Amino acid sequence: MAYINLPEGLPGIRGPMAFRPETAKPLNELAEVLLRTDNSLTRGERELIATYVSSLNDCFFCQNSHGGIAQHYLQCDMKYIDEVKKDFEATQIPAKLKGLLSIAASVQKGGKHVTPEQISKAKESGATDREIHDTVLIAAAFCMFNRYVDGLGTWAPQDREFYVKRGKQRAEEGYLHFDLYK
Amino acid sequence: MAYINLPEGLPGIRGPMAFRPETAKPLNELAEVLLRTDNSLTRGERELIATYVSSLNDCFFCQNSHGGIAQHYLQCDMKYIDEVKKDFEATQIPAKLKGLLSIAASVQKGGKHVTPEQISKAKESGATDREIHDTVLIAAAFCMFNRYVDGLGTWAPQDREFYVKRGKQRAEEGYLHFDLYK
Repeated sequence: MAYINLPEGLPGIRGPMAFRPETAKPLNELAEVLLRTDNSLTRGERELIATYVSSLNDCFFCQNSHGGIAQHYLQCDMKYIDEVKKDFEATQIPAKLKGLLSIAASVQKGGKHVTPEQISKAKESGATDREIHDTVLIAAAFCMFNRYVDGLGTWAPQDREFYVKRGKQRAEEGYLHFDLYK
Repeated sequence: MAYINLPEGLPGIRGPMAFRPETAKPLNELAEVLLRTDNSLTRGERELIATYVSSLNDCFFCQNSHGGIAQHYLQCDMKYIDEVKKDFEATQIPAKLKGLLSIAASVQKGGKHVTPEQISKAKESGATDREIHDTVLIAAAFCMFNRYVDGLGTWAPQDREFYVKRGKQRAEEGYLHFDLYK
């Protein structure tokens, strides 16, 4: 049971969002701009960064809900998402994305953990200033979302298939116009 | 020098906000709702939570800019803000605020660090569900803002008087309608 009296039956972040719609609005707008609007990073790549940071923060709900969206966009399965989370360097993802995931991992530890070497390496692999900016902010934002979800002791479905099905729906609906109760 | 090519001369978060106005918008809206709109926690108390979390994250810009705003609202000096940051339990702040700062400190470490005992203690001191919710989200949001500011290697004025003067201005202007360049 959550630490505060949240509307019943809503998984993860949906409970706190229904509890406090005033803060849900800018939170969803931030997710929409960062993860869905036009960008040289694909939606799948951005969801993968969100998923990876959420796994580093050990947030079950966020890593699975965004993992479900990522696997939908990337047309892969959850096993592949798990491989990226476990050791992205060992996967076949492009060098630029590896560089960005490395920066995201440092941001998860704390802003000062990012090094000039990591930035140079990402730039050498083709990352633009805008892509680096968005990676840092996606990673930072998920350090917020993950803490929000777990800090209030919210409930999350344990069946990972739930998130695979939900991923497709969320990818179609986006973060702005959806029914918290569906 | 920042890790990416930001507009020159803007301190802290202002550089990245000028670089990417699309994300600045929901970030500022979130700050406005959490720190300024009507709430049973005073603006000073909320800015103090933000300041404390920023000090735990060792973010010079955020702990001083929000410390400057907090000292303006609380009508105290920066020395008092420093005492709260150093050891809030030893200060004369109310028991409820101590309970909320304790929760904020756990959120800073990670969402799962919040304990049922901390929540009970805060509730026994009079904290409402809404106040606990907002404390968790303020703490989580500053884990984002701090990482955003430091993860991009932004520049911050080292003279703390800068932040005392700016605090009054920011308290009057709020987070929605201000000129990033002033």
